[in-house]
Amino acid sequence: MSEPEFYVILAEPQNPGNIGAVARSMKNFSVRNLILVKPPPIDDEARRRAMHGNDVLDNAKIVNTFDEAIAEMDYLAATSGVTNVSDKRHLRNPISPRKFANDVYELSGKIGLVFGRENFGLYVEELEKCDVVVTIPANPEYPIMNLSHAATVVLYELYVDKHPARELRHASGFEKQKLQEKFEDMLDAIDYAKHRREGTSMMWKRLMGRAMPSKWEFSVLMGVFGRAATWARLARDKGLEIQKKDEDTKE
Amino acid sequence: MSEPEFYVILAEPQNPGNIGAVARSMKNFSVRNLILVKPPPIDDEARRRAMHGNDVLDNAKIVNTFDEAIAEMDYLAATSGVTNVSDKRHLRNPISPRKFANDVYELSGKIGLVFGRENFGLYVEELEKCDVVVTIPANPEYPIMNLSHAATVVLYELYVDKHPARELRHASGFEKQKLQEKFEDMLDAIDYAKHRREGTSMMWKRLMGRAMPSKWEFSVLMGVFGRAATWARLARDKGLEIQKKDEDTKE
Repeated sequence: MSEPEFYVILAEPQNPGNIGAVARSMKNFSVRNLILVKPPPIDDEARRRAMHGNDVLDNAKIVNTFDEAIAEMDYLAATSGVTNVSDKRHLRNPISPRKFANDVYELSGKIGLVFGRENFGLYVEELEKCDVVVTIPANPEYPIMNLSHAATVVLYELYVDKHPARELRHASGFEKQKLQEKFEDMLDAIDYAKHRREGTSMMWKRLMGRAMPSKWEFSVLMGVFGRAATWARLARDKGLEIQKKDEDTKE
Repeated sequence: MSEPEFYVILAEPQNPGNIGAVARSMKNFSVRNLILVKPPPIDDEARRRAMHGNDVLDNAKIVNTFDEAIAEMDYLAATSGVTNVSDKRHLRNPISPRKFANDVYELSGKIGLVFGRENFGLYVEELEKCDVVVTIPANPEYPIMNLSHAATVVLYELYVDKHPARELRHASGFEKQKLQEKFEDMLDAIDYAKHRREGTSMMWKRLMGRAMPSKWEFSVLMGVFGRAATWARLARDKGLEIQKKDEDTKE
C-alpha cells in the first residue's frame, strides 16, 4: 500500500498573511499540496510570511467552491476548534491530532486536511462532507487558534509520527552501572564518611535516573571521577590529610 | 512538589505581529507569563494578532537584557531550529518538544521557555545559559519555523501532556463481541451463502478493528442489524424468496 499524500485545503481564508504562514509551515513539515477555496489575492504580505514556502504558494491550486477542492480527495479530515458535548452527534466526534497522525498512515490515496475560515470556521455542510473531525486540545476558555497555528500543530503531528525525534543516545544500563561503581569508588578514595555512603550513593543513582545521561556525558563523568579518585589515593598514600574543618565545610 | 510555572521569553523579537501571535497561542494553551527582551513597540498589528491574548500582552514584562529576563528563572529551555551533528557539543544536545513536555513536569519553580530572534535565533552566550535545548523535528531542507509557530508547537506539547485529549469512548471488548454476533446473526437471517460466511465475518471483524467504533456507533449498528435480521426472518417465515438475480447483483 502506498503512503497517503496530504493536501492542505483552506476554505475561504480571508487573510493573505495567514495563507503565507500556512505555506511556510507546510514547507517546514514537508507537505507540498495546497488548495485554496476563493482566497483573497496572494499579496506581498502572503509572500513575505511564506519565506521559503513561496514555491508552495506558486503551486497552490485555486478553486471557486469547496466541492471542487475536495473532488479528488480519498479521505477528508476537518480541523475544528469546537468540541461537542455528546458522543451522539457523530459529525463532531472529534479525535486529537495525535490520534489522527497515528491512524492516518494506515490509509493510502489523497488525504485532504481541511481548515475553515478565520472567523466562522467550517460550515456544517462542509463538516458533513469530511470523514473525521480533528480537534486540537486547548484552553476551554479560548480554544480558537490562529489558522496557521492550527495547521502547524496538525502538520507537526503528521511529521513527527513519520520522523520520530533522534533523542540523545542514552548510556546503557551497563554503562550506568559502571558510572555508579565509579562514583562509589570515588567515595571510597576520598575516605567519605561510612555512615553516609549508602545515602549518597542512592542520591547519585536517583539523580542520574532523572538526568538520563548521554553516552558522551557518561564517559566524561567516568573520566572526572576516575581522575579525582586517583588524586585522592595518591595524596592519602603520601600520608597527607585533609583538615577536619575542610570536611565540615563540605558537609 | 508544586507544579512548574512557565514563562515565555522572547529574546529581541523584531516583528510586533509575531509577538501578538505568540500571546494568542499562550492564551490558547493557558500560559500567562510573557517576558520580552528589547521588543519593538507593541503596535496595532501585535494587538490585532493577539486576539483574546491581549491581556497576555498587557501583562508582559519588558526588559533590556537577556540576563534580566532569566534572572528569576529556575530552569531554562531554549528552542532552536538548528540541530547538532555530534553528541559531544553538549550545548546543542537537543531534545524534542515531546520529551521536554514529558520530563519538565518533574520540576518545580519558574521554567523559562526561550525563543530567539526571527533572523538570528539565539546567540551562543544565550544558549549557554540554558539548561536544555529543545528542537522541533522538521524538514531538514527547511527546519526554520516562524517564531509563533515554534512557540505554538512547544506550548501545545506542554498543554497536551497535562490535558490528554478526551478520545471517543470506545466500545468495550464485550460490546464488540456482541456486535460481531449480531452481524453474524444477520448473515444467518438473510440466508447468506454458507461458504462465504467465515470470510465475511472475518472481514467485518477486521473492519471494526480499524474503525474502533464508539459506544454510540456500537449501539446504533446493533439496532440496524437487529432490525434487518428481524425483517429478513419475517419475510422468510412468510415463504417469501429473493430473486436469484438480486442475489447475483449483490455478490
